[in-house]
Amino acid sequence: MSNNKRQIKLGAFLMETGHHIAAWRHPDAHAGGGLDFAHYAEVAKIAERAKFDTIFFADSVSVRDTNLASLSRTARADHFEPLTLLSALSVVTQNIGLIATVSTTFNEPYNLARKFASLDHLSGGRSGWNLVTSSTESEALNFSFEKHPDHALRYERAREFYDVVAGLWDSWEDDAFLRDKESGVYFDPEKLHVLNHRGKHFQVRGPLNVARSPQGWPVVVQAGASDAGRELAAQTAEVIFVAHQTLEEAQTFYRDIKGRLPKYGRHADHLKIMPGIFPVVGRTQEEARRKFDALQDLIHPSVGLSLLSTMSGEVDLSSYPVDGPLPELPETNGGKSRQRLLFDLARRENLTIRDLYLRIAGARGHQQVVGTPEGIADQLQQWFEEEGADGFNIMSPWLPGGLSDFAELVVPELQRRGLFRTEYEGHTLRENLGLPRPQNRHVQQQRQEAAG
Amino acid sequence: MSNNKRQIKLGAFLMETGHHIAAWRHPDAHAGGGLDFAHYAEVAKIAERAKFDTIFFADSVSVRDTNLASLSRTARADHFEPLTLLSALSVVTQNIGLIATVSTTFNEPYNLARKFASLDHLSGGRSGWNLVTSSTESEALNFSFEKHPDHALRYERAREFYDVVAGLWDSWEDDAFLRDKESGVYFDPEKLHVLNHRGKHFQVRGPLNVARSPQGWPVVVQAGASDAGRELAAQTAEVIFVAHQTLEEAQTFYRDIKGRLPKYGRHADHLKIMPGIFPVVGRTQEEARRKFDALQDLIHPSVGLSLLSTMSGEVDLSSYPVDGPLPELPETNGGKSRQRLLFDLARRENLTIRDLYLRIAGARGHQQVVGTPEGIADQLQQWFEEEGADGFNIMSPWLPGGLSDFAELVVPELQRRGLFRTEYEGHTLRENLGLPRPQNRHVQQQRQEAAG
Repeated sequence: MSNNKRQIKLGAFLMETGHHIAAWRHPDAHAGGGLDFAHYAEVAKIAERAKFDTIFFADSVSVRDTNLASLSRTARADHFEPLTLLSALSVVTQNIGLIATVSTTFNEPYNLARKFASLDHLSGGRSGWNLVTSSTESEALNFSFEKHPDHALRYERAREFYDVVAGLWDSWEDDAFLRDKESGVYFDPEKLHVLNHRGKHFQVRGPLNVARSPQGWPVVVQAGASDAGRELAAQTAEVIFVAHQTLEEAQTFYRDIKGRLPKYGRHADHLKIMPGIFPVVGRTQEEARRKFDALQDLIHPSVGLSLLSTMSGEVDLSSYPVDGPLPELPETNGGKSRQRLLFDLARRENLTIRDLYLRIAGARGHQQVVGTPEGIADQLQQWFEEEGADGFNIMSPWLPGGLSDFAELVVPELQRRGLFRTEYEGHTLRENLGLPRPQNRHVQQQRQEAAG
Repeated sequence: MSNNKRQIKLGAFLMETGHHIAAWRHPDAHAGGGLDFAHYAEVAKIAERAKFDTIFFADSVSVRDTNLASLSRTARADHFEPLTLLSALSVVTQNIGLIATVSTTFNEPYNLARKFASLDHLSGGRSGWNLVTSSTESEALNFSFEKHPDHALRYERAREFYDVVAGLWDSWEDDAFLRDKESGVYFDPEKLHVLNHRGKHFQVRGPLNVARSPQGWPVVVQAGASDAGRELAAQTAEVIFVAHQTLEEAQTFYRDIKGRLPKYGRHADHLKIMPGIFPVVGRTQEEARRKFDALQDLIHPSVGLSLLSTMSGEVDLSSYPVDGPLPELPETNGGKSRQRLLFDLARRENLTIRDLYLRIAGARGHQQVVGTPEGIADQLQQWFEEEGADGFNIMSPWLPGGLSDFAELVVPELQRRGLFRTEYEGHTLRENLGLPRPQNRHVQQQRQEAAG
């Protein structure tokens, strides 16, 4: 393995008992895994043994209880808060990245900057922040909003939020702390910088009360696919998790995002695009299909319909014939990119509502691959080599079995092809992803002034 | 050891490299310990081996950089965020409680309720929340406030914040989760409760997206000693950390607080009062004194003066003669109880400014005991038996040595006297502190309705 050859990056997207909506009913699934640390520790170790770049947690800050009859048949109503969970997982892992989703709409930038810096110190430089603006009304109602702030306002706040967080992460120069017992000087006051941010949404003086962290800045991840989301990602993201159904879609997105980088002075390699993939792995095609069908059979119809409603922006589809086509969707305030995705998928394949919910129940808009290790590796290789992806976010159908299938069967195949590492390149998430460590802005400024 | 005999409760107050302002310069101190997980893991294990009830982290959300020359000579400017740190420590400990300070002024109740519930699940029922309202202007400036909200408003918000958090912790009944793979029912919708809180400061719909935690509610801790703080504690706290200099002061406070409980229908045993104590332990009195003097000698004068200013509510004392008396302090918006404490101490003992800063540099307003294991045990026993305290919050002068001195020399002496456990009574922090597990309000209500 050479460090110079471009290789696939892999993230393990971890969702309670698995990504499939009926995963918790799988015979091998630990149904209570969503609140069992031992379950997550096992899963994280499987991913680390397979040399995954990172584990990744999505998040939401509400129970989506609009359809209780359906919700009560899923394992989606309760789970660990991701930052507390990842802090604990940092202790039982050594190399793998730890990415948590936290919303800019329901948090304060000082608190967020501090927690991710703290996790970066705890883990020796393995933390990452998935910046989301949150898209559901039910979340807003837990945070004293009368209604969910609209898409444009959320992105405006997110942009400023990011600036504050990144500014706080540069509060201290890397070599600010001398800790010289003899002289009694703990830090060099010249290397401490006050932010004094005064913007439309935030006034934050700083400095952050955590030393600059091993990665300088924790890795910044994003998932928004709307135009506002893409632009924010082009400016600020280092990893994008995204959902695509076809290589063509993926290539279009890839070209679009990479094309936006130069105007921000950014290099194409410094933003890794990692679409989600939902792999069902079998030693034969038949075995893979059997595994998948067994999961699909566990979906209660009310769960399928409700999932579809949620993903189309809280639209109630129960009045439409389940074996008829997806109706025209009204414009909502929810996640715009998900709506478009569903629309495109149903139109392209002429799906009924039932077809559609069965389709998304597993992958939920992401690419679903049911096949052999070779077949799955072929597809990943194609997407990777034909510039649809820099890597993939593996959404295991059920846990831990679905992930260990991928780790034990697909990863070795990728390694044989020279497409994936056999040892970690470095100690930090940045080193493994091949991302530069940001230079502190104040040091940069000083050098520029000295040079000028 | 009998469960029926009242015994002393012990908390280990952990502050970077130790509670003494010059601790980091101690020859045995790990100067970079404040951001070193291994340091905290070692310290937590020392406390757990000695059967402490809990470790405890104070917190603030700013760098107090008004006097950089002084601050840069201390280890107080950077440290871990307590919830991420405690989540990691939950993995390397089995029995000890994990208490983090989080402010009600700079957080949202949904986020806080969730994080502590998450930590309670991670740790198998060992989490505790120290509710503070935050008292420094520098913190407010990091959270888009023009000035720090005043004391009364902070307490009003805190009271409502607590109600929301406690309400969210009762979102799910204890037996709500069936996780029945056969029937496909994950939870019983009848056992999920929406909060629908609409108050002056918060509108929070709920429910919380975390199952009810092992302790039902994480243990609620408070430290405010003003009248508003005492009243809030009498209504809501289960542990009070407080600073006293004399037994008489402690007894007055103890009687006052316990006397406020009946009007809220609370039992005196269900609120544990644990004053801070700063112990310097030597095998002889001379050894203890030598250890203390060595630490005091490491205090730079600018550090001492600045500490005093901070503790008196950001008042600048540098224009007053350092060997003269403490001047009358103006009323400020800072922590009222700390100001009064300093005043009382200086007046009682006729201290100069220098005397006072040397005095508080170690214990910072808490009781300072420099002595032998027997002498220290005598004092703890007296405070405990004469109803000045239910336990103590041990503020080790330096870490880990100061804590291991106490653990290895004082704890065995307390155990010989039957005043302290030799084994943990239970698995949760509540069980060890002897606090009842709160019944879910909805279950309580249902039972009352059934009975009526």
